[in-house]
Formats: sequence, structure tokens, C-alpha cells
Amino acid sequence: MADFHLMSELRQSAPGKIVLLVLDGLGGMPMEPGGPTELEAARTPNMDQLALEGTLGQAIPIRRGIAPGSGPSHLALFGYDPIAFQVGRGVVEAIGVGMEVRKGDVAARGNFCTVNAFGKITDRRAGRISTDAAAPLVERIAQVRVPGVELEVRAVREYRFAVVMRGRGLEAEIDDTDPQQVGVEPLPAGPRSPGSQRAAELFNAWIAEARKKIADQPKANSITLRGFSTDPRLPQFPEIYGLRAACVAVYPMYRGVSQLVGMEILEVEGDRPEDEFSAVAKSWDQYDFFFVHIKKTDSMGEDGNFEGKVAVIEAVDAALPALLALEPAALAITGDHSTPARLRTHTWHPVPFLLWAPGTCLPDDQSRFGERACHSGGLGTLHSTDAMPLLMAHAGRLTKFGA
Amino acid sequence: MADFHLMSELRQSAPGKIVLLVLDGLGGMPMEPGGPTELEAARTPNMDQLALEGTLGQAIPIRRGIAPGSGPSHLALFGYDPIAFQVGRGVVEAIGVGMEVRKGDVAARGNFCTVNAFGKITDRRAGRISTDAAAPLVERIAQVRVPGVELEVRAVREYRFAVVMRGRGLEAEIDDTDPQQVGVEPLPAGPRSPGSQRAAELFNAWIAEARKKIADQPKANSITLRGFSTDPRLPQFPEIYGLRAACVAVYPMYRGVSQLVGMEILEVEGDRPEDEFSAVAKSWDQYDFFFVHIKKTDSMGEDGNFEGKVAVIEAVDAALPALLALEPAALAITGDHSTPARLRTHTWHPVPFLLWAPGTCLPDDQSRFGERACHSGGLGTLHSTDAMPLLMAHAGRLTKFGA
Repeated sequence: MADFHLMSELRQSAPGKIVLLVLDGLGGMPMEPGGPTELEAARTPNMDQLALEGTLGQAIPIRRGIAPGSGPSHLALFGYDPIAFQVGRGVVEAIGVGMEVRKGDVAARGNFCTVNAFGKITDRRAGRISTDAAAPLVERIAQVRVPGVELEVRAVREYRFAVVMRGRGLEAEIDDTDPQQVGVEPLPAGPRSPGSQRAAELFNAWIAEARKKIADQPKANSITLRGFSTDPRLPQFPEIYGLRAACVAVYPMYRGVSQLVGMEILEVEGDRPEDEFSAVAKSWDQYDFFFVHIKKTDSMGEDGNFEGKVAVIEAVDAALPALLALEPAALAITGDHSTPARLRTHTWHPVPFLLWAPGTCLPDDQSRFGERACHSGGLGTLHSTDAMPLLMAHAGRLTKFGA
Repeated sequence: MADFHLMSELRQSAPGKIVLLVLDGLGGMPMEPGGPTELEAARTPNMDQLALEGTLGQAIPIRRGIAPGSGPSHLALFGYDPIAFQVGRGVVEAIGVGMEVRKGDVAARGNFCTVNAFGKITDRRAGRISTDAAAPLVERIAQVRVPGVELEVRAVREYRFAVVMRGRGLEAEIDDTDPQQVGVEPLPAGPRSPGSQRAAELFNAWIAEARKKIADQPKANSITLRGFSTDPRLPQFPEIYGLRAACVAVYPMYRGVSQLVGMEILEVEGDRPEDEFSAVAKSWDQYDFFFVHIKKTDSMGEDGNFEGKVAVIEAVDAALPALLALEPAALAITGDHSTPARLRTHTWHPVPFLLWAPGTCLPDDQSRFGERACHSGGLGTLHSTDAMPLLMAHAGRLTKFGA
């Protein structure tokens, strides 16, 4: 991981700005032996020019062989060892939709699900009901009151919602109620420690009443909760690196993680790469660091849509000149993990990493941004947690260590 | 090292089997500048095909610059940090020949040696007497009794034997009696801690009597002991990875290390690579993981026999189709360390590492298994301790970390 003590000791101010451009799930794979990966197949003249001028490498998100979720893989890119700093899904989801999770609050991620007449789950995602269809149901369950605590519920997307419980004596060591399989009843919220007993009981009471409110529904007639968690009180990114830091992301999850480390969230109008780059341009003078998140590479990968993922990469490349026109001092283009269309899931494979900084990059022999070029790049195999120290250095924001 | 906590948290069952094929001392060197290494010189069409389909890398056994013994280098391949988990040579040898080392027992490795009329060592290995010649001498020294403790002695190979002392109040912080040079007397078993005083005295008493039993011998007229040690109580491999694990090895040492981590030892009829692969085939359904150990690459390297090492590698390659016919889900072919014929000893050089898994390997540009191809492989430079997490991931046996 980035050594936070070293970073705060060595950081210095400099005029140049840093951009961390993350194409979610960027790393890919050939669909058949001998073929190109998504990134290799994409026509990316702008990234290739940056590859020529900059230095390539391949980044290990967590550890060798470990396929990461989105939370830990982003924390790693921000320099946090994701094994040392573990953040509950509930908190990430809640903050991602703009809820506050204060000290002592317990957050959970919720799913609408379908149960049959015997109370057994037949669909863990309630037929993936739409965001619109879920909205009135979220309103219904949000009306449920439990004495002694405050509760807030908000829709996330489709069948997902987040809930935050606020009150005294709440702890979050509570087992998921989602049994992760169909044909069985949802589990009770089970406390794993004496201190979590009270919160578990209150959540069980809330769940029982909330289920009654939607029992008449054909699909979304029950709920499950998981990822019970509290604010992890992470060290704050702006203090570690001495950077005024902004996040440009369309999806709640990524805004949530950024907020947890103390970044400010910028508004984006639209969800195309050019919209996100416009948001960066608009606030260029107010920040030193921009984390820009592109979601759809990952979504296409998870759908097994090789061509779709290629098209998203090409769209980012086409929009890139607007970002480069801002003249960042250091830019990294990478992914948080690999999501090969061939495997339709997050994987452990190292992620292509492009580092570009005018005048401070050690050149290598690569002139094309792709997995195999990155294997042979000048940065070699690095860890995602190396991204921030490298960006800081290349932007002239770290002074010498020792005399 | 493999993060054991992470492994046991993320492991999931999957049908695919894992094979770790270790060619002892595989890493080599050119005999003269510009020449090929042993592996590069060998004709290995099967491994080359796997290299084409899979991903190459070079593995650091312990740390940069550290040449390992066989115990630590194998522990590393099993995922154990060999600095954190140190196992005494005595225990490894004893368990390797089928002796029990219980909690509280002290084991040591013994050598027959030759001393002159002044008691000074003239040959630390007693002219490398044969296993057959050593057998009756082992019987003689095994008759020696020491009041208060039980002693068991067994032949290992040639001039080597193992001894286990069992009784109360025994500790193993005892210096070797082998002075590692000729022209001097064997040293006494010297305790390095007050708690080891008793065991040291008892071993000294036993050594004195044992020497009398063989004083009439022309060559093997004395003994030395070293590697005093107790059962290190290692975390158990099957529990860490959730794998039913088997070891196929001809030499006691490797069976010993495998047994210490909880693998089951399979019987092998014969000592050719095809015999070892047959043993794998016979038990294919009973295990999820097979560690297969080929000794002779190392022996040839230590003898400085370049051509002999090439021939062993070619014999393994020729036998490989029988192993591949079993259709492992993930296969690694590597060494535990380098033993270049040119240097005739274990070295610290990174070891060629081939990872092959149908459908889950990220391809690189390599199509030949050899040191230089491995330098440029897609896995980059890894640690031997990364082998198990990578094999687990590629066999579909690890789930995602974090949400």
C-alpha cells in the first residue's frame, strides 16, 4: 500500500494537477485463443499516443489471484491497502445514494425479493424490478417506525435499496439475512457479538413490519438485508496527499467510496465520457486531483459483450482530447480490476496501467495501450496501491526522502 | 505469502483439480556466455505448447538474493512464508522416513562420519557409504538406551539417518554437533537456552554410547547430529485452501515437508516421471490437489551435469501427456529454486514458472518454456508464495473479495 506516513511527510505543493481515469473492469481477455483482448481490439489512437509518450505496466488490484469487488479495488487505487481497510457494503451503498452515515449509525444494503406462500425465496432479486417500479415500494417500507431509533431508507437502483439506522448502542456485527440461495426462508438478522444484539433485534422488528407493507406485491413481496456496517473512519485522502480531491462518477457506489475517503463529489450532467470530462473541466481550477470513473466497461464485461466493451473504450478514447486539453501534470489510465467479457465477472488478472506525465515519464518500448504491451511495459508488474505515489511523484508533488 | 485468512475466507468448492509439478532445482544457467540454459536447451514440445496457451513468469523462492534449502523453498510453493514458518531439518528428515514427531519430541538429522585416531573428522560423510552398508550400523546405534527418554533411529539414505527423542521437558534449541569442516573434532550438542539443557545432555550421552557401537568401522566410525527441532505445528494446507491434497514424491525429504502441512502421501511404484504421473492418475478422484515432485533435475544440477539435467527435463516433458490427459483445471510447472549445472548448487535466481489453465489464463507473447521467455512472461516477476493463490483462482476456487 501507499505509505501514508511517507506521503504526508514528503508531499509538497506544485501547480500541476493529477487525473486518475478508471475504466471499471478494463482488463480483458481474448474471446478465443490467439485473438485480441477488448483493449487490444479497440481503436484507441489517443491512448496509444499516451502509451508512446508515457510508461506502461500491469497492476495487481489486491493480491495475486484475488478477484476484487468494486469497493476494495477502488480503495487500492486511492492507495489504501484493501485488506487493512475493509468497508462494509451497507455503508458504501448508503453513502453512494447521498445518505449520511454518522458515527454510531448502522447501514445495510437491501434487496427486494420474491417469496412463495411458504415464505421461501423464489427470486433473490424480485425479478429485477425496475427503479421506477421499486420507488413506491421503497416509500412504503420507509414509513415503518421502530421505537428508540431513527430509520432512513433510500432506493439505490432496480431491486436495491439502502437503510441506515441511527440511535444509541448500535453495533454492526450482524449476519446477512440474504441466504444467497432460493428455496429457503430469509434468515433473521443474527448478532455476532453481544454489542450487536440490540441493533439486530431492531432490524428484525423493522424487517417484519416492512414485509407486511409489501406483502400484496406479485414480485417484490419481501426484503433481505446484508452488509451491515458502520462508517469505517478511513484516513482522509486530501490529508494524506495534500490534494484537494474531486470525484467524477455517475454510479452511486463509486461516489460512495470516494466520499468515504474525503473526496468531494462533482455533479455530472449526462453519463457519457465527454459529460464526465466536462465536469472535470468545469471544476479544473478548484481541485488538484480528479478521480474519473467510467462504469460501462465493467457492465459490458459482465454482460459478456466483447464488442460493447470495445465500443465503450473507443468512446472514452474519442473523448480524451477534451481531458488532455486541460493539461494535467500526471495522468493514469487504468481499471480497478479485470472484467473479461469471456468470463463475465470480475477477475484477479493484472490490469493494464498507463502512466503519462509530460517530461517526467521514463519511456519504454511500448506504443499501444493493451494487455500484452503492458506486460512488457517499463513499470513492470505493480500494485494498484502504487498508483497514487507514482502520480504524486510524476506531478512533482513529492520531495526527496532522506538527506 | 499467501494470506491464509483470505484464502480460507474466499475459497469455494469447484470440480476442477489443481496440479503443482515441481522440477527440483529447475532454474539453470548457460554453461558459457551466449549459450542456452538447461531448460532452454531441452526439447520440450509439450511444455512449449502449455507456454503458448498459458502464462509465464519468474518466481522468487524466498527473497531476492536468497538461495533456499529444500524445506523453505517447498513451503513457499505451498504458500507459507518460509521466513515466518521455519522448520528444522531434523523434523523434516524424520517425518520423511515415516517417523512420528509428536508434540514435545526433539528430532535431529544424523550423519555417519569418519574420525581419525585423534578423534578429528576426516570425512563428514563417511565416504558416502551406501544405504545397504549403513543399515546394520543404524541398527547398532538404535540399540543405545538413555534413561528417562525413548529414542528412535532410522536410516535415511546413504550416510544419513534421523533420530527422535521422546520424553518430558525436552526442548530443541541445541547447536549442531557437525562442525561443517574436517580436521576438527565433532562438537558437543550445546544448549542455546536453559530449557534445552536437559535434551542436550541426553543427546550427548546417547552420542557417546552410539559412537562406541561403531568404533570398529573403517569408515563410518562416528556420528554427528544437526537440525535439532520440534514439530512446528504448521497451519494445515487442506484447511487453508479447502483442498484434499496429495503428495507424489520419491524422496523422503519432500514427503516429509508435505506431511507437515497435512498432505497425504501417495505410494509410487518406480521413480520415473511416468511412474509419478501414474500415481497421480490412480488417485485422481480422491483429491483436489496434487503436488508432484521430480528430484533428479536438482541432483544433476548439483553434479554439474548439464546434459543430464536436460535429459531429465525432456523425460518429464515426454511423460507429460499422461498428466494432461487427466484434464487438470489448473497446472503450474516450476522449480523450488534454481540449481544451475554451472554452479553445482542451489541458487537464488528466479525460477521459471509456467501457469496453465484452460480458459482462464491471460495470454502473453511467449511460446517456449525457458528462463528468458519467463522474464518476459505475462505474470512478470512473482513470489513462489503466489503460486497457490494463482492456482486456486485459475481453478475457479476463489470467490470475489469484498463487495
